Amino acid sequence: MKYMFFDDYSEGVHPEILKYISEHNLDQQVGYCDDDYCKQGADCIKKAFDVPEADVHYIPNGTIANVIGLVSMLKPFEAVVAPASGHINVHEAGALEATGHKILWVDTPDGKLTPALIDKATDYRQDEHTVLPRAVYLTQATELGTAYTKEELSGVIKHAKDKGLYIYLDGARLAMAIANDSLGFTTQDMGNLGLDMFYIGGLKNGGLYGEAMVILNDELKKNFRSHMKQRGGLMAKGRFMGQQYVGFFGEDNLWLSLAEHANSQATKLYRGLKELGVEFDLVPGTNQIFPIFHNDALEKLRVDYGFHEWEKIDESKTKVRLVCSWSTPTDKVDEFLVDAKAAL
Amino acid sequence: MKYMFFDDYSEGVHPEILKYISEHNLDQQVGYCDDDYCKQGADCIKKAFDVPEADVHYIPNGTIANVIGLVSMLKPFEAVVAPASGHINVHEAGALEATGHKILWVDTPDGKLTPALIDKATDYRQDEHTVLPRAVYLTQATELGTAYTKEELSGVIKHAKDKGLYIYLDGARLAMAIANDSLGFTTQDMGNLGLDMFYIGGLKNGGLYGEAMVILNDELKKNFRSHMKQRGGLMAKGRFMGQQYVGFFGEDNLWLSLAEHANSQATKLYRGLKELGVEFDLVPGTNQIFPIFHNDALEKLRVDYGFHEWEKIDESKTKVRLVCSWSTPTDKVDEFLVDAKAAL
Amino acid sequence: MKYMFFDDYSEGVHPEILKYISEHNLDQQVGYCDDDYCKQGADCIKKAFDVPEADVHYIPNGTIANVIGLVSMLKPFEAVVAPASGHINVHEAGALEATGHKILWVDTPDGKLTPALIDKATDYRQDEHTVLPRAVYLTQATELGTAYTKEELSGVIKHAKDKGLYIYLDGARLAMAIANDSLGFTTQDMGNLGLDMFYIGGLKNGGLYGEAMVILNDELKKNFRSHMKQRGGLMAKGRFMGQQYVGFFGEDNLWLSLAEHANSQATKLYRGLKELGVEFDLVPGTNQIFPIFHNDALEKLRVDYGFHEWEKIDESKTKVRLVCSWSTPTDKVDEFLVDAKAAL
Amino acid sequence: MKYMFFDDYSEGVHPEILKYISEHNLDQQVGYCDDDYCKQGADCIKKAFDVPEADVHYIPNGTIANVIGLVSMLKPFEAVVAPASGHINVHEAGALEATGHKILWVDTPDGKLTPALIDKATDYRQDEHTVLPRAVYLTQATELGTAYTKEELSGVIKHAKDKGLYIYLDGARLAMAIANDSLGFTTQDMGNLGLDMFYIGGLKNGGLYGEAMVILNDELKKNFRSHMKQRGGLMAKGRFMGQQYVGFFGEDNLWLSLAEHANSQATKLYRGLKELGVEFDLVPGTNQIFPIFHNDALEKLRVDYGFHEWEKIDESKTKVRLVCSWSTPTDKVDEFLVDAKAAL
Repeated sequence: MKYMFFDDYSEGVHPEILKYISEHNLDQQVGYCDDDYCKQGADCIKKAFDVPEADVHYIPNGTIANVIGLVSMLKPFEAVVAPASGHINVHEAGALEATGHKILWVDTPDGKLTPALIDKATDYRQDEHTVLPRAVYLTQATELGTAYTKEELSGVIKHAKDKGLYIYLDGARLAMAIANDSLGFTTQDMGNLGLDMFYIGGLKNGGLYGEAMVILNDELKKNFRSHMKQRGGLMAKGRFMGQQYVGFFGEDNLWLSLAEHANSQATKLYRGLKELGVEFDLVPGTNQIFPIFHNDALEKLRVDYGFHEWEKIDESKTKVRLVCSWSTPTDKVDEFLVDAKAAL
Repeated sequence: MKYMFFDDYSEGVHPEILKYISEHNLDQQVGYCDDDYCKQGADCIKKAFDVPEADVHYIPNGTIANVIGLVSMLKPFEAVVAPASGHINVHEAGALEATGHKILWVDTPDGKLTPALIDKATDYRQDEHTVLPRAVYLTQATELGTAYTKEELSGVIKHAKDKGLYIYLDGARLAMAIANDSLGFTTQDMGNLGLDMFYIGGLKNGGLYGEAMVILNDELKKNFRSHMKQRGGLMAKGRFMGQQYVGFFGEDNLWLSLAEHANSQATKLYRGLKELGVEFDLVPGTNQIFPIFHNDALEKLRVDYGFHEWEKIDESKTKVRLVCSWSTPTDKVDEFLVDAKAAL
Repeated sequence: MKYMFFDDYSEGVHPEILKYISEHNLDQQVGYCDDDYCKQGADCIKKAFDVPEADVHYIPNGTIANVIGLVSMLKPFEAVVAPASGHINVHEAGALEATGHKILWVDTPDGKLTPALIDKATDYRQDEHTVLPRAVYLTQATELGTAYTKEELSGVIKHAKDKGLYIYLDGARLAMAIANDSLGFTTQDMGNLGLDMFYIGGLKNGGLYGEAMVILNDELKKNFRSHMKQRGGLMAKGRFMGQQYVGFFGEDNLWLSLAEHANSQATKLYRGLKELGVEFDLVPGTNQIFPIFHNDALEKLRVDYGFHEWEKIDESKTKVRLVCSWSTPTDKVDEFLVDAKAAL
Repeated sequence: MKYMFFDDYSEGVHPEILKYISEHNLDQQVGYCDDDYCKQGADCIKKAFDVPEADVHYIPNGTIANVIGLVSMLKPFEAVVAPASGHINVHEAGALEATGHKILWVDTPDGKLTPALIDKATDYRQDEHTVLPRAVYLTQATELGTAYTKEELSGVIKHAKDKGLYIYLDGARLAMAIANDSLGFTTQDMGNLGLDMFYIGGLKNGGLYGEAMVILNDELKKNFRSHMKQRGGLMAKGRFMGQQYVGFFGEDNLWLSLAEHANSQATKLYRGLKELGVEFDLVPGTNQIFPIFHNDALEKLRVDYGFHEWEKIDESKTKVRLVCSWSTPTDKVDEFLVDAKAAL
């Protein structure tokens, strides 16, 4: 195999983060994220996102982060609106429902919610016979490689707030959205758009493991650690996650530059394939692209490259997912384009 | 108010059932549905539905019946396919999700599932990242007044079985479907189509309260009473439910004749309104009809009649639900038609 | 069999309640406990218990009542303190845990909590690693036939409130406690002791089915019907429960006089057995007594009487439960005492 | 502060494991524990524990491991027997109850179950009104520093199996039990005592994070990864956990030698304190000891040492927990003993 474009977590951890962990390994620290590194990481995050009053917590993975974040917002009979393609709806094995809550999913063309789609998902007579919508789940960037512009996201947030809904944002690939300048966000903007809670993805951007949850709404801060512990989200050696975020948001803003690399490789791949005449049905905005290949071309490419089949288009064509990451070498992208040209 | 067409549970209990209860009121019986009446009711049901090997249980209402039936079929990560309009999906306040399970809902034109719709709901790559479909939830008759023909229902059951899915049927208005001769069912057929479990609606057909669950699949019989107790579905004075089903399925097949009455009133109403030019977008098959009225006609009718608004069609028209029941007097239907004529 | 002392729900419904239901059977009413009878029943209850500001709801059985009441008080990581012998802890098949909550049970000599026992159950370092106690579950009368005096109950309530705990009281046999004059309660007292929520048992006191929940704490009133619906506790023909409580608390206070009858039969049985030298380890206060018999005496009594074995004391002795009810005939009690004398 | 004896996860990761991770960091691997390292780690484990047919999975922490393991064994109405001091009962914030299951806890003198205690916990009339016991939860070593001998553990397992109960063992500190020769276990024994499932603690024995679950009972293997995903227990970069277990069970049996170190430091501390006249109410067997100090001695020790207060014995004495770990330096133990002598 020449290269795997399966996902953005095929390699280990970024060497600078590993170095930092190695250099601060054997000092004693208290457990469960109350250590100095976790505090330091939180300070870095609060500064980077301009959220001095936020609470920051570290959670081992995105599924648990989503579960805890949403459970903290919902009473038993309350539900969350989400895009049909949202991670909580399709790729978490029913983790949210396992806590007792319904997802009011709505089809979207591109993985993004809009005010109109939120209205559609909640357009039913609400009373004691029905679940009551109480939160909105967004992903930025989406699972389909797209991302909200600053204006789009502000619009969705405002609309949800007007309807009395909390807004939770799954930022597994938040860095890739911020790194896309055309969307109009800075890191600091992200903390000031009116979100109630969001997490800053680490794992898919060169991290060891773990995601940083940022709570902006004061109502949701109390007892959050109880939710964390109950859902398996409180790690005894939380120090590593603190160190990871110090590594990400310390001096260099490694977090953003890794995402820029991932995006630029994906963009190169996208443009190269477009030039070769490969079809796309969505314009990508981040580090995931979804080209549609003829099956016989795929057969050839599959020998040397790893990627997931996403959707069967018809008898002869298949949409696949190619993911570039913080560690994707430029020459592998070039090589893929050469091989794709030969295979088409 | 001249009459309420809100639903089929606006009156009390059918006088014959009340008489039977009154006549067998003060003898001592053991509790929790182990009494003589519950056994006798079960015998009547097994005979009427030709299911001598079935287990029969009595459950206080349809929501609990659906929860218990489906929970008994599902492991934590397994899900149930249902029509979007299905009662469990929209009118049980998330009761099934509250037990931890996802509903894979699919839009239907008429509230009925088909093999193709089941395929659509389950058409995704299934692995440990996703919920696994394990059961299908049907309603007969549906919440939209329609009902499966024998052929349609057999086709759905066969298809689901071929896919390894259990079939659960919510029979809140099963009597009304069987009473519609054009669908091709007898009561005995119902027990022999391959269902794994279904319940025989009592409440909406003149009952006091309670539904009779019929378990046909041996795998699902064990510990069913544990599920019942845990979900609040085991009644101490279960005797009344047993007596109710003796009343329904004793000598006269009261159960079917009450449904025939309800259907015939609804049919009369439907035909009368059609003659007056009122629009319908579905052809009703049972005791619920959904005429589309101009709003100003509705304003007039609302003074004297009760009914639920179902859906806003546009600025000037509204679809409403009119339900006839075992106790709807013929003269009230006639009167409504006269008043509707005047209002249009 | 001469008579069954198994429980207080072996007979049907009290004839006066049945008569009231029969006389108000065929008028149309809206569903789901919004009917005139439910309102009238609530008014009777508010007057009888002197709780003009309370919310009253009707719930089909005690298990569901307990689940809904406690779920409405608890966040996911919060727990309820209960006596080890409490119904929710041992006889509801884990219904409360099925909603996700831990019961912090504590052994009691007599089924009653005390301030010291509440302290014992909550005496642990509380933080995010542990559940947080948030409610106390009491039964009045207890499952062991005992009952709190007014002073005892006031003390428990005050202590719990001082600790920031809600108080929920399971009143399945509340009538029997109030009917015991030596405990010092009136019906009106019950509503004014500082409880947050309690239910007024109907089923075990001659009812058809259903219990009346009384919410005194304003915080807990909102969206209570959503909890009811989600847990299967909202009955379409709620009218019967409303009628039942009109029957109980209308002109005669039937509710109290039925309990007085049950208590007096049990007292007679207790005194008679004591005179015969039968041992008891608890002094009963209501309609349940727990005599300890030699096994050979039990063998003889079992031929003609029904009762539950409660606990094996040693190789030769067994504690049994004898329950008298609103309908236990005096002559059956006399006959049992004669037969017991012969059997000993 | 001179040293913290708070726990066995105050330092980072053992340098050899970190070295192995660093050396195998940037190669591409597939995600979600399907990588080469996870396979290799599983092979090491299967060999070390002599369980060639076992399934091995990696789970991020002990709370999630316990939840997943037990959920995979239980139907909704089934319960698990556990010692009152068991981690799942007191230090997981109700995580197991949050999945819907009751814990049948039983007081133990020393954190260990016995056949008699299992009988006590399950000694009640079991039917549909009660939860049904289905699994037993053990910890080896226990949370109280004690551990089962091979004979004790075999006896408990045999007894549970005879009662039809699954046996699940929480091995957060399993290494410390095996490293205690007086208990009579080898690592290979552990896999062959009849357990259904257990996990091999990594975190508390010098690991980075994550525990290795070993499934021995074939019935429990199917769909285990679905349980993992649904409860947040499937890590995208599982490779690190695989690498960790290669590090533990590769050539040197680092896992056992680290535990031997931890035990020996704790033993030294225990003996030294005993010689100084400090009281203990349990004889420790592993790396945790629980001395009882006068409060004024504690005041002095608290200045320089970290430890948790475990239990107030009386007004003047307190039991504390001292934990030694894979990384506790001998000279810190010596220093503590000197300071303790001065403080007493």
